[in-house]
Amino acid sequence: MSSITGNKLKVSIFGESHGEGIGVVVDGLPPGIELDLDYIDFQMKRRAPGQNDISTPRKESDRYKILSGFFENKTTGAPLCAIIFNEDKNSKDYSEIKNKIRPGHSDYTGYIKYRGYNDYRGGGHFSGRLTAPLLFAGSIAMQLLERKKIFIGSRIKSIYNIEDDTAPKVDETEINTFKQMTFPVICEKKRKQMEDEIVNARNSNDSLGGIVETYIINVPAGYGQPFFDSVESRISHMIFSIPAVKGIEFGAGFKITVQTGKEANDEFYVANKKIMTKTNNSGGILGGISNGMPIIFRTAIKPTASISSPQSTVDISKMETTVLNIAGRHDPCIVPRVLPVIDGAAALVILDLMLERDGEIWI
Amino acid sequence: MSSITGNKLKVSIFGESHGEGIGVVVDGLPPGIELDLDYIDFQMKRRAPGQNDISTPRKESDRYKILSGFFENKTTGAPLCAIIFNEDKNSKDYSEIKNKIRPGHSDYTGYIKYRGYNDYRGGGHFSGRLTAPLLFAGSIAMQLLERKKIFIGSRIKSIYNIEDDTAPKVDETEINTFKQMTFPVICEKKRKQMEDEIVNARNSNDSLGGIVETYIINVPAGYGQPFFDSVESRISHMIFSIPAVKGIEFGAGFKITVQTGKEANDEFYVANKKIMTKTNNSGGILGGISNGMPIIFRTAIKPTASISSPQSTVDISKMETTVLNIAGRHDPCIVPRVLPVIDGAAALVILDLMLERDGEIWI
Amino acid sequence: MSSITGNKLKVSIFGESHGEGIGVVVDGLPPGIELDLDYIDFQMKRRAPGQNDISTPRKESDRYKILSGFFENKTTGAPLCAIIFNEDKNSKDYSEIKNKIRPGHSDYTGYIKYRGYNDYRGGGHFSGRLTAPLLFAGSIAMQLLERKKIFIGSRIKSIYNIEDDTAPKVDETEINTFKQMTFPVICEKKRKQMEDEIVNARNSNDSLGGIVETYIINVPAGYGQPFFDSVESRISHMIFSIPAVKGIEFGAGFKITVQTGKEANDEFYVANKKIMTKTNNSGGILGGISNGMPIIFRTAIKPTASISSPQSTVDISKMETTVLNIAGRHDPCIVPRVLPVIDGAAALVILDLMLERDGEIWI
Amino acid sequence: MSSITGNKLKVSIFGESHGEGIGVVVDGLPPGIELDLDYIDFQMKRRAPGQNDISTPRKESDRYKILSGFFENKTTGAPLCAIIFNEDKNSKDYSEIKNKIRPGHSDYTGYIKYRGYNDYRGGGHFSGRLTAPLLFAGSIAMQLLERKKIFIGSRIKSIYNIEDDTAPKVDETEINTFKQMTFPVICEKKRKQMEDEIVNARNSNDSLGGIVETYIINVPAGYGQPFFDSVESRISHMIFSIPAVKGIEFGAGFKITVQTGKEANDEFYVANKKIMTKTNNSGGILGGISNGMPIIFRTAIKPTASISSPQSTVDISKMETTVLNIAGRHDPCIVPRVLPVIDGAAALVILDLMLERDGEIWI
Repeated sequence: MSSITGNKLKVSIFGESHGEGIGVVVDGLPPGIELDLDYIDFQMKRRAPGQNDISTPRKESDRYKILSGFFENKTTGAPLCAIIFNEDKNSKDYSEIKNKIRPGHSDYTGYIKYRGYNDYRGGGHFSGRLTAPLLFAGSIAMQLLERKKIFIGSRIKSIYNIEDDTAPKVDETEINTFKQMTFPVICEKKRKQMEDEIVNARNSNDSLGGIVETYIINVPAGYGQPFFDSVESRISHMIFSIPAVKGIEFGAGFKITVQTGKEANDEFYVANKKIMTKTNNSGGILGGISNGMPIIFRTAIKPTASISSPQSTVDISKMETTVLNIAGRHDPCIVPRVLPVIDGAAALVILDLMLERDGEIWI
Repeated sequence: MSSITGNKLKVSIFGESHGEGIGVVVDGLPPGIELDLDYIDFQMKRRAPGQNDISTPRKESDRYKILSGFFENKTTGAPLCAIIFNEDKNSKDYSEIKNKIRPGHSDYTGYIKYRGYNDYRGGGHFSGRLTAPLLFAGSIAMQLLERKKIFIGSRIKSIYNIEDDTAPKVDETEINTFKQMTFPVICEKKRKQMEDEIVNARNSNDSLGGIVETYIINVPAGYGQPFFDSVESRISHMIFSIPAVKGIEFGAGFKITVQTGKEANDEFYVANKKIMTKTNNSGGILGGISNGMPIIFRTAIKPTASISSPQSTVDISKMETTVLNIAGRHDPCIVPRVLPVIDGAAALVILDLMLERDGEIWI
Repeated sequence: MSSITGNKLKVSIFGESHGEGIGVVVDGLPPGIELDLDYIDFQMKRRAPGQNDISTPRKESDRYKILSGFFENKTTGAPLCAIIFNEDKNSKDYSEIKNKIRPGHSDYTGYIKYRGYNDYRGGGHFSGRLTAPLLFAGSIAMQLLERKKIFIGSRIKSIYNIEDDTAPKVDETEINTFKQMTFPVICEKKRKQMEDEIVNARNSNDSLGGIVETYIINVPAGYGQPFFDSVESRISHMIFSIPAVKGIEFGAGFKITVQTGKEANDEFYVANKKIMTKTNNSGGILGGISNGMPIIFRTAIKPTASISSPQSTVDISKMETTVLNIAGRHDPCIVPRVLPVIDGAAALVILDLMLERDGEIWI
Repeated sequence: MSSITGNKLKVSIFGESHGEGIGVVVDGLPPGIELDLDYIDFQMKRRAPGQNDISTPRKESDRYKILSGFFENKTTGAPLCAIIFNEDKNSKDYSEIKNKIRPGHSDYTGYIKYRGYNDYRGGGHFSGRLTAPLLFAGSIAMQLLERKKIFIGSRIKSIYNIEDDTAPKVDETEINTFKQMTFPVICEKKRKQMEDEIVNARNSNDSLGGIVETYIINVPAGYGQPFFDSVESRISHMIFSIPAVKGIEFGAGFKITVQTGKEANDEFYVANKKIMTKTNNSGGILGGISNGMPIIFRTAIKPTASISSPQSTVDISKMETTVLNIAGRHDPCIVPRVLPVIDGAAALVILDLMLERDGEIWI
């Protein structure tokens, strides 16, 4: 496995932060699907740095080039490969971090795993930059799902200790609104507070994390498998692939533990000849299988590991404690840029589940 | 996938709650490992019902029979299959739940997924009873890991709103103590409160959930993969296979979102020529790869879905709303019985990661 | 991998020749399919020893017990497990072969792979007896395919140097006739010669092999994948899982190399609004994908490795050359017993390809 | 699956004959291995067209660009991606073959599988050109194996009805000699006859196939798995991924069926404290597992499907029979160009088997 995932829809990402380029191969897309490249561009721009003054000013061109699997503006069914070339790859001096392992990063674990042969520049293959090709693939999956009326979107539930507890509507309109925003918060006042807090963190050379809440609507009942391929298993497997994620919960999540069984059980009823539940504590999944209600999950994202403050660390070439100063400016809060990646990653899982259950032909 | 999981170590579970039997095939165990069957028995007894007065009085014999892969008291390297025959399988009348889908259970999703052909008796293949063969496999994995000095154990962090915030020691002695207990709580006083609360729930025909905290010590740095096969991805995939789990978090988990980067980053230092971190907010995993510190995660378990109180639901044969009364007595809180299953399931993942990295021969 | 195979339809076999039992788990069967157990019994009897005087007189009871995944005479969609208990397991003395590795068998490679911990009795997990659960699974797959009008059958093309070059009709009637025979040869005269040759071999403590030709009709065009999951790749992977197989060829096979391109290319034409080919040198597969014509392949099966004649070999406990005398009577020719296993194994592949392409629901 | 293969070492190929480019991602290479790019170039040149006058004069530049996984001239352990851009992609007119399906090609099956959305130009993703990135990956695997003293090479056993029955030495020197040749035949006289026959075929607008014999030496005993992951299963799965292959046999192959058991069984003996077999009819594999003897297999390659002679076929847009004239000059015999691809493909399998058994770290 490693950098490849999926059953019927396989996604393989490759590349390093400061190598020749990064990219993705998506194998198993149904043929004959017209792709809206503007849709992809828009979602990728949400992830790109430099969107606003609370993001890193570093400019990355995320222009992709599709090499294969795409003919006369449609998917062919053959593997679709897209490449993003790294344009600015030699600009930085990485001698500082070659041996000084950055706290909160994968420098140490990458060094051990690859016996010191990993490309250490900018985190190499571990770089968050690899989420660009992942989102590219995810933007294709999102488009395909939308043709089946399945919509995926997320909002920022909290940044640091600022929580937006406004109840979402969980409908197509709201989800599409979230998808148009670079900082999707329902409550305007809370959004302002969050942004202020992020500016404060940046000004004190610190960083913040937060919680993203994701909605997937109109997934029919019956997708997923009991036990080892539960919908939760598949989604969590994918979401923990995204750097900086430290927790995931479905439906009522951890708070279901302070409910009693009477409260937690979602009672069934019939409406318009469809079986629904009165509440949705299960987050749309029962026994590992979708029940037709919205799939809802929350993802905990840690504060950006790159901070400009001095930190105690180890020089692995000398095996001695030292102090690390990371130069440059970083995203004081990565949450808004991770959010579209979560959408795309979840879409890849849902599309894979559908291809497994319904077969590989869509039209 | 569905009821099979793993890369080098494949685990396949099968069976239904009220069919002929349940069982497991474990494929990929290293050969020549002597197994301590008493160890397996002890762990399986922790999971079995009827251990104490807060558990269901239903008696299930979980006596397994090993059919293969085990010769002269050692693993052979060939697939090891164990069966637990269902002794008491026809004793109950399931006509009530055949059509009335139980809230919080998989009756509805199983019905849809399998087009009404699933064995509905006692949840069929979706039954929590399938965790018995899973724990059997896990108890083998735990034993093997212990020979490499890797220990896995869990404590109950909370039941309902009673939380034990005593800090654990996270060492071999404590973990082994947890493994000997059927209700492992560090603080005695909190344990008593939890048990009282469970008795209260039972007396009001209700049920409770809780949070389990799991520790895995001495996993060397360098296991796991970047991105799609991160240690978090693999563990969460497995843990969400266990019925009733609604959330998982690693290290500081969701609370890392209310830390700043300065607090959240675990600073490195050298001690005894080994690289350590001062804190362990990352839960022993950086960039998806183990860093040598204890792997720590918490699992949210929902209140038992089976409650004796009347609940509104749907009769799927008539597609109309009705009331369900589940007869009999159920576990008012499944947390202590799920806990050893989490240990075993986590062990299967860690063993698989080790076999992938180190190869299939251990001795 | 190892003893598990398949994508959507996973088959896991386990057990040893002289252990407690052998069995199979089939995961991914579509739900709601009524099974004809007599059909399974009949095919398994074809494989069982002692069918006639050219087979080993050893009696094995291949009575299986279905433990799961089968309810009210139909598949449920959950894993279907069947066990065959070994009734006669301690009857033999294996001290002779414990250390003397049998030529043509897996004794040596099993010893090395499993570091001497393998169950050596009767070949242990490597025993041809494991083809009984494989054929059980295959007999289910064959039944399911027949409901889609896909028929699979084989004939003996040659035994030793006796070849039946009668052209087959390759239609449903003929295939079903083959499936009813324990020694399916088209030409009666050749069948008699083959049987005589086998009796001669037995009388001289020797053994014979042969070639089986297999037909799969009515597979629609469009199944399989380019490159790594070509239909040939999938079928050959499966067929080489069967002990004693040393070669496989599709369509004209090795003889296509003595054709020129003009002869080898199968020209297309239209008949009854369907695209057909005039010849079928490709064996129904082009570019790895079925073209709607019969899939035809031939399998080379080596002479039974167990022969009663003295053979030079090595005693691995002493690392010195010695002489081996295998007591007892063995199948002088395993071909007719392997033949139904090939049918069943091929059926598992075709069913898997169909589930992948068409999805997991059939009714 | 589809265009991805392997367990620990995953290879994903992508691209179309006349699209932007073709390429490969190799995931799971051990880190820290210095690569000899000249070695790769040399092997790729053997596959490239235009090497001599019996090959197609079409010029393809197979210059690859490594995008990732390669740092300071060594593998990093991260996915290694290489791209070959198609330089000459718009030069041809494919309107003739858009609807007229070419006999012996995948035009028809690709059309059906992908519902007419496949890139039909030059066979699209089905093109033999995709073997260039496969051989790129294989040339890396061959290099790595050579550092473990495992050598892989092939000779042409026959072209059409000209067979070279000279016995090979099956040693390192001979194998390396084969690897240096674009037309590796042991007997000079037979080589000349084969070349003449190919020229004849070209002159009559026809084409020829042949048989390639491949040797893998110094694979230690104990690699592979019983049953579904036998070495034969794995190698055959891979080799049938290569276009134009119609048969494979190991050791004595189909001819083992005309031996008796006494002849076929390879007797063991001890030499230099190592267990060897006197003969090698099993082709180095017993019970699916390597036995330390050379692994030997033969591959049947059909005559080039592209021939300039008129052929009867179907116009799928009109569903009527028509005549196809393929313009241009083609390889009259693809065998010498397929041969290095077989070497590389086999190397990928052997390397994967080693990584599975021995773990992912080599140095």
